Amino acid sequence: MSKPLPLILDCDPGIDDFIAILMILAAPERFNLLGITVTGGNVSLNYTAQNALKACELVGRPDIKVYAGCPEPILRELQIEDEVYGETGLKGVDLPKPTMALQRSHAVDFLIDTLMTSPQKVTLATTAPLTNVAIALVREPRILDHIEEIVTMGGSMTLGNITPAAEYNFYADPEAAHILYTCGKKITTVGLDVTHQIVTSLEWFSRLDALDNPVAHTLATMLRAFYEYDMKKFGLAGGALHDPCVIGYLLNPALFNGKDVHIEIDTSFGIGRGRSIIDWWHKRGLPANSHVFSEVNVEGFFDLLTDLLARYGNRQHILTNEENT
Amino acid sequence: MSKPLPLILDCDPGIDDFIAILMILAAPERFNLLGITVTGGNVSLNYTAQNALKACELVGRPDIKVYAGCPEPILRELQIEDEVYGETGLKGVDLPKPTMALQRSHAVDFLIDTLMTSPQKVTLATTAPLTNVAIALVREPRILDHIEEIVTMGGSMTLGNITPAAEYNFYADPEAAHILYTCGKKITTVGLDVTHQIVTSLEWFSRLDALDNPVAHTLATMLRAFYEYDMKKFGLAGGALHDPCVIGYLLNPALFNGKDVHIEIDTSFGIGRGRSIIDWWHKRGLPANSHVFSEVNVEGFFDLLTDLLARYGNRQHILTNEENT
Amino acid sequence: MSKPLPLILDCDPGIDDFIAILMILAAPERFNLLGITVTGGNVSLNYTAQNALKACELVGRPDIKVYAGCPEPILRELQIEDEVYGETGLKGVDLPKPTMALQRSHAVDFLIDTLMTSPQKVTLATTAPLTNVAIALVREPRILDHIEEIVTMGGSMTLGNITPAAEYNFYADPEAAHILYTCGKKITTVGLDVTHQIVTSLEWFSRLDALDNPVAHTLATMLRAFYEYDMKKFGLAGGALHDPCVIGYLLNPALFNGKDVHIEIDTSFGIGRGRSIIDWWHKRGLPANSHVFSEVNVEGFFDLLTDLLARYGNRQHILTNEENT
Amino acid sequence: MSKPLPLILDCDPGIDDFIAILMILAAPERFNLLGITVTGGNVSLNYTAQNALKACELVGRPDIKVYAGCPEPILRELQIEDEVYGETGLKGVDLPKPTMALQRSHAVDFLIDTLMTSPQKVTLATTAPLTNVAIALVREPRILDHIEEIVTMGGSMTLGNITPAAEYNFYADPEAAHILYTCGKKITTVGLDVTHQIVTSLEWFSRLDALDNPVAHTLATMLRAFYEYDMKKFGLAGGALHDPCVIGYLLNPALFNGKDVHIEIDTSFGIGRGRSIIDWWHKRGLPANSHVFSEVNVEGFFDLLTDLLARYGNRQHILTNEENT
Repeated sequence: MSKPLPLILDCDPGIDDFIAILMILAAPERFNLLGITVTGGNVSLNYTAQNALKACELVGRPDIKVYAGCPEPILRELQIEDEVYGETGLKGVDLPKPTMALQRSHAVDFLIDTLMTSPQKVTLATTAPLTNVAIALVREPRILDHIEEIVTMGGSMTLGNITPAAEYNFYADPEAAHILYTCGKKITTVGLDVTHQIVTSLEWFSRLDALDNPVAHTLATMLRAFYEYDMKKFGLAGGALHDPCVIGYLLNPALFNGKDVHIEIDTSFGIGRGRSIIDWWHKRGLPANSHVFSEVNVEGFFDLLTDLLARYGNRQHILTNEENT
Repeated sequence: MSKPLPLILDCDPGIDDFIAILMILAAPERFNLLGITVTGGNVSLNYTAQNALKACELVGRPDIKVYAGCPEPILRELQIEDEVYGETGLKGVDLPKPTMALQRSHAVDFLIDTLMTSPQKVTLATTAPLTNVAIALVREPRILDHIEEIVTMGGSMTLGNITPAAEYNFYADPEAAHILYTCGKKITTVGLDVTHQIVTSLEWFSRLDALDNPVAHTLATMLRAFYEYDMKKFGLAGGALHDPCVIGYLLNPALFNGKDVHIEIDTSFGIGRGRSIIDWWHKRGLPANSHVFSEVNVEGFFDLLTDLLARYGNRQHILTNEENT
Repeated sequence: MSKPLPLILDCDPGIDDFIAILMILAAPERFNLLGITVTGGNVSLNYTAQNALKACELVGRPDIKVYAGCPEPILRELQIEDEVYGETGLKGVDLPKPTMALQRSHAVDFLIDTLMTSPQKVTLATTAPLTNVAIALVREPRILDHIEEIVTMGGSMTLGNITPAAEYNFYADPEAAHILYTCGKKITTVGLDVTHQIVTSLEWFSRLDALDNPVAHTLATMLRAFYEYDMKKFGLAGGALHDPCVIGYLLNPALFNGKDVHIEIDTSFGIGRGRSIIDWWHKRGLPANSHVFSEVNVEGFFDLLTDLLARYGNRQHILTNEENT
Repeated sequence: MSKPLPLILDCDPGIDDFIAILMILAAPERFNLLGITVTGGNVSLNYTAQNALKACELVGRPDIKVYAGCPEPILRELQIEDEVYGETGLKGVDLPKPTMALQRSHAVDFLIDTLMTSPQKVTLATTAPLTNVAIALVREPRILDHIEEIVTMGGSMTLGNITPAAEYNFYADPEAAHILYTCGKKITTVGLDVTHQIVTSLEWFSRLDALDNPVAHTLATMLRAFYEYDMKKFGLAGGALHDPCVIGYLLNPALFNGKDVHIEIDTSFGIGRGRSIIDWWHKRGLPANSHVFSEVNVEGFFDLLTDLLARYGNRQHILTNEENT
């Protein structure tokens, strides 16, 4: 069995980042989670930090290191999206105030220090506006040499979800996204083209209920609270699970299908701001800077997700990395 | 039976505009074609003008008035797309040099004079970069009061076909498209989202061959020549018939389904230039300035198109408006 | 003595355009004024048209042909600047309603028809947003071959006067200005860098009063009414006479000094919109598309202007072109 | 006598930054130089770091802490300007390789740590592209509370020096400049409008020679080497001493005259990119975010500069802060 993947998650929980954390911590044999960094995003930095802590505590992992990062995007005021996830980002549930504390280091410093000193290359999963990662890249470009893969939730080939043109994560900090896509490394991109296929359903909520464990129960409660939001807003068949797709890909890449293409982030200040211009048909003749997914095995994804959550059914499933390795 | 619709077609033939002309002239009981205006576009103005004349002569209608318009877009040099349709715009066939002449008036003057003096409101179908229409609107905004409906081939909710962001007609003159979509009239928009569903097939070519008339034969020859282009370029199942969709809609609106939304044309000079930002989910809260189609009855469309072409099977089908009314 | 220069003035009076008209009509031995075209600008098209007529009638020239043009700029709603010149554009005087009529042709048609059929090349002086000229150029690019020189009031190397970046005429229709500066002809540019040196003074008002003619009297009344405006707004020593500089240059080019440089109009939609980016130090290495003035002989200019106005002292100075030639 | 001002200099030497360092170190009674941070800019980061060290060693101050920062601007590749200052940034002299070492901390970390822990507010002087300062501001916005004043060399109300629109420091990293001017603190701006008045002359070189000290001699040698550059490029009367103006202002604010205005940095990607849009006439009605200078006492400035350099005439003038306080 291969060693677990050294992983950093940069996120802004938010319900779907919350699920991403639960997925990672359910698979300690696969992920060695070095730390979680949070940024302002769906809700303000205070809430995203608290929510990351709550996710760790919910699954009995107060040992996970959580680092607060940049409170605001590079150029603009934060676009709080609390209409979607509620003021706290976790609408619909009232989790206990966390007892574990944030780390004292800044997320950017943690990213740079960890990457520059890691004996192995580290995988970076991002499910938030990319401010932390971008600032780390400008401050210390050499971190790139220490990154195995960057998997990013963001972008769209079709319509956006925060504006008609742009997906939220890229729109919230287009300059940061631009920095990522011009950094010289091929970015694995998980955009709305696949995440809008991964939608919740009443049938799946029943499967969660049947698991009869408190984690799955909490999750089902959260998800039911915004089940109809995406249906009304975007004509989807349920609520989209954007960020979990990133972890789903890392656990089973075969669930996703895409191709190598060039992406440019629109950093103009007009109506196109924040759009990911994905050159799917190679019109521009530029070298690929991303692997972009267009297809996902929906059934396979939900089976994977459900199996992971099933692990929280009794406590012995929740292993620390130390026990695992 | 209702009176035929007074119609002006602004086009840049090109094979698919060519078919649009054939469709109009096959249905004199439905269309009173006041004139064809041409602009530079797929190929240069000289060729688009010649090709419009050739379409009229092919179906025995040298009485149709054809007006040459603006040779270049408002702000930029013309983006000739002769890779698609060949240098002349009618790759694969060698039609006789037209004997009928262009009208001496400029297309913009014809548009203004005809609209300002028409006893009835006129329908405007556009299948080209919108330079002629936009210049007419700036020169004489009051023409709007004399227009029944503007049906435009252009734009995309998903990917573009000339750049990753933009569809050709809007990209070729984004300022012109912007003028149209801010003119105050609700524009009927036929974009790639439907035209990429209307693709040629070997089976349909066989239906054309079976018609056993010279017009259908000429058309099948043309279309076979670029049958594989869109397949290779855009992964389509055949060659897309963009412009014929405009006429198909005018003949049978029930074939198309869409909704009222707001569109803004990206006139920035970056990578998003020329994109139609279609607010399909009403994120911006702006009043609709367009009716945009997302669905088309493919089988119904091809039946309609084939029936129209069948009318060229013997000469008595080709009526002048005078005979018809 | 050389023949008078065939001239068309495109303007938006406005007091300073009004003076430009008076200057032209005071020098029939130098100018053969083929027509005045007006556009919306400082005030709406109705007022600019009326004001052009009033200028002609004030100096007894109801034979001058005045053509109304485009009411709105190419892409945007008109930026009325009636704070400067009052609602009518001629704040401070109440001239009689004109008895002469506007020509029935549109300004754009007049420009095209006159240029395409003129036996001599024609000089074009512009003192307004460039909509009329730009639309004529897009509609019929061949007019360029029939133009002797284009002299344009617009732009700035330093600060703007309508925004911090942009001068009014270029800002009001940046796309039109862009069309002019990319048309292929070298444009003579009279910008704020010189016009802000040509400012009215109490001393010069006294010279006007001393002329003891009704035209100079009317003018002095007008100019006194906005004498302090530019002083307060821009720290100038008096009210700037922008548009008269164009005519001053045509009468005596030696009053102005400049050099051949490249200009690009900023057509972005941000804070720089409408700025004339003048490459005075040849940083870009592009061929010059303009002759731009930076110096003006202020005393010489006011002597010229005063001499011209003195000609209105008795009626025999006001000659028609017919009498003159 | 007041205590010396706690000061951080962010620079990219370059000859004129080099002089700025000499000025600071000549006035230990006025400046407590906490550190020098360098960025890539006029030349690459390696050279700017070396040049800062050389400046310190030239005046016998190896105790000064120098920190290397970001090698590249936020969004774009570095615009090396070695045409101006030579490949090393110190064209014309061959100073010994420095024996003192760079500090191990990153400039951004030094800025944040120093500011967050300083018992007094600190003055920040910047004479380079603003990448280091901007990244610090995004990473830790609370540093603003610990800054006394930010004095920045950058921008222009008239022409630019790197493009027709933009001054070099702002152009090299427009997003960084934008971050500074939207940070909420009023920035003291020293732009080309004053620095182009502070130009070297043969007469002043003679004054430097007359000082008969090695520092002034080295400086005169450097400056003679690019004396004619600005004369040829920008029609100046000598070589402009941009960065020394920042230190001149800190030593004697009365030499400079300006006003409180609003500045916005053009971060579009067109021809206006990097321009400082200075609203000198308050057209936009926005609150001032900068104090911008338009006038400088040239004679007074050169007297000050010469006096400072005279202090290097014998070694006892060169005091450490420790001795001074």
